[in-house]
Amino acid sequence: MDSLNRQSVEEFRKADKFPVIAVFENVRSAYNVGSLFRTADAFKIQSVFLTGYTAQPPHKEIKKTALGAEDSVNWMHFNNAEEAILFLRNEGYRIYAAEQTTDSISLETFDVTNEKVAVIFGNEVSGVEQSTIMLCDGSIEIPQFGTKHSLNIASAAAVVLWELIRSHIVKK
Amino acid sequence: MDSLNRQSVEEFRKADKFPVIAVFENVRSAYNVGSLFRTADAFKIQSVFLTGYTAQPPHKEIKKTALGAEDSVNWMHFNNAEEAILFLRNEGYRIYAAEQTTDSISLETFDVTNEKVAVIFGNEVSGVEQSTIMLCDGSIEIPQFGTKHSLNIASAAAVVLWELIRSHIVKK
Repeated sequence: MDSLNRQSVEEFRKADKFPVIAVFENVRSAYNVGSLFRTADAFKIQSVFLTGYTAQPPHKEIKKTALGAEDSVNWMHFNNAEEAILFLRNEGYRIYAAEQTTDSISLETFDVTNEKVAVIFGNEVSGVEQSTIMLCDGSIEIPQFGTKHSLNIASAAAVVLWELIRSHIVKK
Repeated sequence: MDSLNRQSVEEFRKADKFPVIAVFENVRSAYNVGSLFRTADAFKIQSVFLTGYTAQPPHKEIKKTALGAEDSVNWMHFNNAEEAILFLRNEGYRIYAAEQTTDSISLETFDVTNEKVAVIFGNEVSGVEQSTIMLCDGSIEIPQFGTKHSLNIASAAAVVLWELIRSHIVKK
């Protein structure tokens, strides 16, 4: 551990993590995947799951954006989100889609300190697949007030993961 | 307003905003600037200030990443952060650097609902300039637990801006 409390890759891989998994479903941009790896490293989440045609390491653009975090963060690839969800259920995770739906939970009210939680983020244009949303335990919505209603997917993942980590920190 | 509560660019420009300004100091990547514009639009913050050599609109890569948010969000360019800080002080803003310093405030404890707040985000590699930090009212630190201690700058801005907007939403 250095003065910034940074861990070595070896220490990090062995360390206890926050019980949070981020799932990217059919995310086009390798830069967004790289950013997700950095966020996953910074917030010490359990794993990153990449599904469908989401880019996966080793990949030149992920390497460029992740800056080595692709080596420290646990990650797995699944052919589709359904397979990832089956795996997550078996591991006892509650599974949420990051989507605005008729009964989505507003992010600031989302309290999951006592649960293992996985959040699925969808394609940059079309979002999480409807068939995937139907397999989830619910949806989480980031309140948005602007003209676009679409944060960049890597920014959205950072915001949601922060909120989950935040609840662990504040409860301690 | 459509079913997602999205506003037109015209409505958005006239609407009341959260009293929050994001400042990018010497940010190299136009993609990061574009992402910031989307976040600023989504969270309806007052303005985005771009200082030093940070890319500014009109710019091909900003346009590609901001997806039109560069037209809805108020923004200004300043030659350097010092000029931006003078402007902000004159407008009654409290000014914070997003940096880990010896007396930085941990993000989850940062409560500023009754203040106008500006947060300065620095260059991707070197962070906020030391001379700029010294002109600020304080520093805010995003708790990080990994091997890198460096979220992508657009992700970091999204997390900090969400925390500020969150405190306005939760207090209401």
